[in-house]
Amino acid sequence: MNPKYDECLEACIECLKACNTCFDACLREDDIKMMAGCIQLDRACADACAFAIQAMTTNSPFVKEICRLCADICESCARECAKHEHEHCKKCAEACLKCAEACRMRSL
Amino acid sequence: MNPKYDECLEACIECLKACNTCFDACLREDDIKMMAGCIQLDRACADACAFAIQAMTTNSPFVKEICRLCADICESCARECAKHEHEHCKKCAEACLKCAEACRMRSL
Amino acid sequence: MNPKYDECLEACIECLKACNTCFDACLREDDIKMMAGCIQLDRACADACAFAIQAMTTNSPFVKEICRLCADICESCARECAKHEHEHCKKCAEACLKCAEACRMRSL
Amino acid sequence: MNPKYDECLEACIECLKACNTCFDACLREDDIKMMAGCIQLDRACADACAFAIQAMTTNSPFVKEICRLCADICESCARECAKHEHEHCKKCAEACLKCAEACRMRSL
Repeated sequence: MNPKYDECLEACIECLKACNTCFDACLREDDIKMMAGCIQLDRACADACAFAIQAMTTNSPFVKEICRLCADICESCARECAKHEHEHCKKCAEACLKCAEACRMRSL
Repeated sequence: MNPKYDECLEACIECLKACNTCFDACLREDDIKMMAGCIQLDRACADACAFAIQAMTTNSPFVKEICRLCADICESCARECAKHEHEHCKKCAEACLKCAEACRMRSL
Repeated sequence: MNPKYDECLEACIECLKACNTCFDACLREDDIKMMAGCIQLDRACADACAFAIQAMTTNSPFVKEICRLCADICESCARECAKHEHEHCKKCAEACLKCAEACRMRSL
Repeated sequence: MNPKYDECLEACIECLKACNTCFDACLREDDIKMMAGCIQLDRACADACAFAIQAMTTNSPFVKEICRLCADICESCARECAKHEHEHCKKCAEACLKCAEACRMRSL
């Protein structure tokens, strides 16, 4: 695997971890009503990252297209998480932005 | 595919649909705080069904073990959904029980 | 779920089944060397359909983008399967084309 | 996440990578006919690891049961890969054994 490829794979793994950690933590928050959008996007984003991870590691001919889609979903999840003050949301927003950037580069 | 096999596959597909519909509907409920356990198990159960569907349709040598695990997760999700009065929860509980039974048969 | 939505969901389920059946059957063929591209695309296409099924049933805000990607992958898998005379390949090509069409409609 | 948990998560990530790399490489081998069992188990094992990764990172109540199943599948894939001399098979067998051990510990 070339370096650019590896970087994107690692960013997707970190993003999946952050999204699922945030998903679980949001479900335990008192203000869970406010977190509904975050819970939905955390799952959508983790699933997109999981899909991209499988595509990259199997050397799928659709890696670029899948990474482009993953970048879009990561950006959307980052925007939602950035609205909240919870530490898990901030960490998730950061991981999503980093992943979006790596996926965008990988999709060119 | 033999009939028993097909029945289990269809039950998993219906259960995945019901769990994901319930997941999305729970996130829109006013009493979302009460639904946190349901949201978590809906996702866990839909993912287990998706895993079982891939295993059955690829003719995996681990179909029995995977269906046994899927049955356990479906039963747990059914118990949680059965606590709530929402129509989507009742439908989900019913689909989960049916899937648990079909997966239990398939795992023998 | 509206009718168009349902139709696309069912087409993805049928396509996932056909791709995974073809994947398993290709691995048992004598001319497996010729089937390598088919085996790779069958898996990629089944995974794309599984991803689209989760997105549609959870009411993801990215359904259109995911269905557009799924349509592209289905078309590619259909082209590869159409090159082979095996019954499972012909059935798979047919299911992929039907799914590509339904996903393309859903993505508009 | 406690250390034991993290170790199992990392082992599953490395195993998923090794299985998918082996899957792709097997499809390019001249003696692909001999690799059919390896190709099938590589996919089954990567999917089991992906399922376990989602379960661990979402803090699923079924982590132990899922890790037990994942350990069984990893052991089976390791046995198959160990039959072959290809470098990607040897690396895969090693990653599978390490993952099986970590999952077995996590399942207790």
